[in-house]
Amino acid sequence: MIYLDNAATTKPSLAAFERAKEFVSEKYYNPSALYTEGYALQSELKKARSVLLSKVADENFFEFVFTSCGTESDNQAIFSFARRGNAVTTLGEHSAVSAAFHELKNRGVAEPRFAPLNPDGSVNVEKLLELIDEKTSFVSVMHVNNEIGAINDINTIAKLVKKKNPRVVFHSDGVQAYGKIPFKLGKEIDLYSVSAHKIGGLKGVGGLIKRKSLVLPPYIIGGGQESGRRSGTENVFGIKQFQYAFEEKFSSLKEDFARLTEYRELLWEGLDKTVYTRLSSVNGTPYILSVAAKGLRGEILLHMANDKGLIVGTGSACSSNAKNRYSQVILACGFDERTADGVLRLSFSPETTREEVLQATEILNEVGRDLSSRMK
Amino acid sequence: MIYLDNAATTKPSLAAFERAKEFVSEKYYNPSALYTEGYALQSELKKARSVLLSKVADENFFEFVFTSCGTESDNQAIFSFARRGNAVTTLGEHSAVSAAFHELKNRGVAEPRFAPLNPDGSVNVEKLLELIDEKTSFVSVMHVNNEIGAINDINTIAKLVKKKNPRVVFHSDGVQAYGKIPFKLGKEIDLYSVSAHKIGGLKGVGGLIKRKSLVLPPYIIGGGQESGRRSGTENVFGIKQFQYAFEEKFSSLKEDFARLTEYRELLWEGLDKTVYTRLSSVNGTPYILSVAAKGLRGEILLHMANDKGLIVGTGSACSSNAKNRYSQVILACGFDERTADGVLRLSFSPETTREEVLQATEILNEVGRDLSSRMK
Repeated sequence: MIYLDNAATTKPSLAAFERAKEFVSEKYYNPSALYTEGYALQSELKKARSVLLSKVADENFFEFVFTSCGTESDNQAIFSFARRGNAVTTLGEHSAVSAAFHELKNRGVAEPRFAPLNPDGSVNVEKLLELIDEKTSFVSVMHVNNEIGAINDINTIAKLVKKKNPRVVFHSDGVQAYGKIPFKLGKEIDLYSVSAHKIGGLKGVGGLIKRKSLVLPPYIIGGGQESGRRSGTENVFGIKQFQYAFEEKFSSLKEDFARLTEYRELLWEGLDKTVYTRLSSVNGTPYILSVAAKGLRGEILLHMANDKGLIVGTGSACSSNAKNRYSQVILACGFDERTADGVLRLSFSPETTREEVLQATEILNEVGRDLSSRMK
Repeated sequence: MIYLDNAATTKPSLAAFERAKEFVSEKYYNPSALYTEGYALQSELKKARSVLLSKVADENFFEFVFTSCGTESDNQAIFSFARRGNAVTTLGEHSAVSAAFHELKNRGVAEPRFAPLNPDGSVNVEKLLELIDEKTSFVSVMHVNNEIGAINDINTIAKLVKKKNPRVVFHSDGVQAYGKIPFKLGKEIDLYSVSAHKIGGLKGVGGLIKRKSLVLPPYIIGGGQESGRRSGTENVFGIKQFQYAFEEKFSSLKEDFARLTEYRELLWEGLDKTVYTRLSSVNGTPYILSVAAKGLRGEILLHMANDKGLIVGTGSACSSNAKNRYSQVILACGFDERTADGVLRLSFSPETTREEVLQATEILNEVGRDLSSRMK
């Protein structure tokens, strides 16, 4: 099987898994316990926090809170700070952000506002800024779009947002960027959501990076773990596996970025242009290539490719639970419904090989041509 | 090391861990994905749900929702249903419930009411019922107390509560009961929280059992996983390890219950009664024996025992993050502050051996007499 659905989830690092196993077999204690063996886990958590934070942000200015997933991180940021006036986000967000914004309206706590996208899937910054006024309490702009791969320059956007209203709390969903894109968090960013399982970690582990001076209310309330910001016994094993997986990814982040940029273009070059249209911009993340077989159904192509040993996505895996037939994000980029219907998302990991990319190209051409001929 | 802090967390089942490992090494896909390999995980989740539910409840009447921990389960139940009038709970609850109840007041959504405890730590049912009126929207009574081990007859209590006000949503925190106490959920119970890591599962996995006909709003909102009740990519590996660990525990639940009852009494019989007072009733869970070395500090005894190779607790591990010096639960049982200061919680698992119990008795007597003599 060739696996090109790494934006949905990645294969966990087995090396990191084996390395972290001691926190299941030996050091399984409760980190809140007072005896040596329990208390010692606090320094393991501290070390994990430091590794996961220091590569992407200034540790003097930011801190790392563990959560159970990227969705929880997004929810905590939104429901903690979008509490009055209006809250502004983009039409490109993952459902963990967009659904939470719609919920703000249901709860009557803040008016949600959605900024339009550019054709490449990045947010239209000018229009975003127009939505921000003196009543805006919260702004959320994703770092890398999970469907089309567009990169938003969140440091610059945060700066512009704060220039317009300095009291805004600025959040970014960094789930598809963290551990993949060379980047340092700028000081105008208040909150940044990350997830383990998109970069070789396990499902069930996430994080919310926060500006130290920002008081973050807990969303899960109880025993006061994570300095009162996230209760529930810390998932030490999952957290350590995340740390180790991140260390691995980060050690070759720039090389992977360059190599996958090459692979993405290699894949695109090999695709039959009479079948496929490219949706992802060359300026987007190298980890995602979104294409559309206009007039064909992406879902059928997905199953045909699956039968031939290739796994691909059709947009966000998470949206498979949603009611909409068409990806709202793809439509927001300005593509029509026939294009949206034919979307395939090909997403890579550092483990993806050149040989796999070439084989994937063959399979995609084969199934695309096959289905096209059947539709005539 | 003799580990008698199993109420804080248990050693995960390594057999279950190895058995579930295929969901990391091979079947690591996103269960929301449309291709065969992803979709197949839905039936793995379904199977896990069925195992985890069927042993404790009628599957026609209840269903199982996965969460990230017991605390999240408690929070989801409380914040979803304690939304108006008043909400009633007990003074014996874990902080995941009690802190959330206090938060209800801060948010102004419902008036929290706390029922007193009997000396054995169970709730005073008469007083509980007195707190319930026509404005009560939600009642939460824990199944097994995590500090002193008292068992509440929640099926009967739920029946009495619903008799007084049939519109009440009844929740119980079952974290210290699930997989330990022979029990079937009665039909008057609407919601029941469970946790994996208290019975050989991994940290970071929990569940909320719900009455099927009850509409449960999501607390974590996004991609619509768990039939819209809990978003975030499902932690398949953790969930399967939970299923396997539960199967193990459940296969010997009754035998373990009987043997640990014997061990609990063995431990108590061996303890020096000039040093230790028993707090736990013989009717409580066999998994917890709470004792107090009146006039001594439990925390010091804990460290002295730790040095001699015995790990014990001093109440809830989770409360070590709290501000209160004395356990509010122990005080609510009617014990004085000098007793509350000297509490040691000895908690067992099915892996605890008779030899360990006897050795623990020796060590506890040794450190208790040692500290007593130094205090004179």
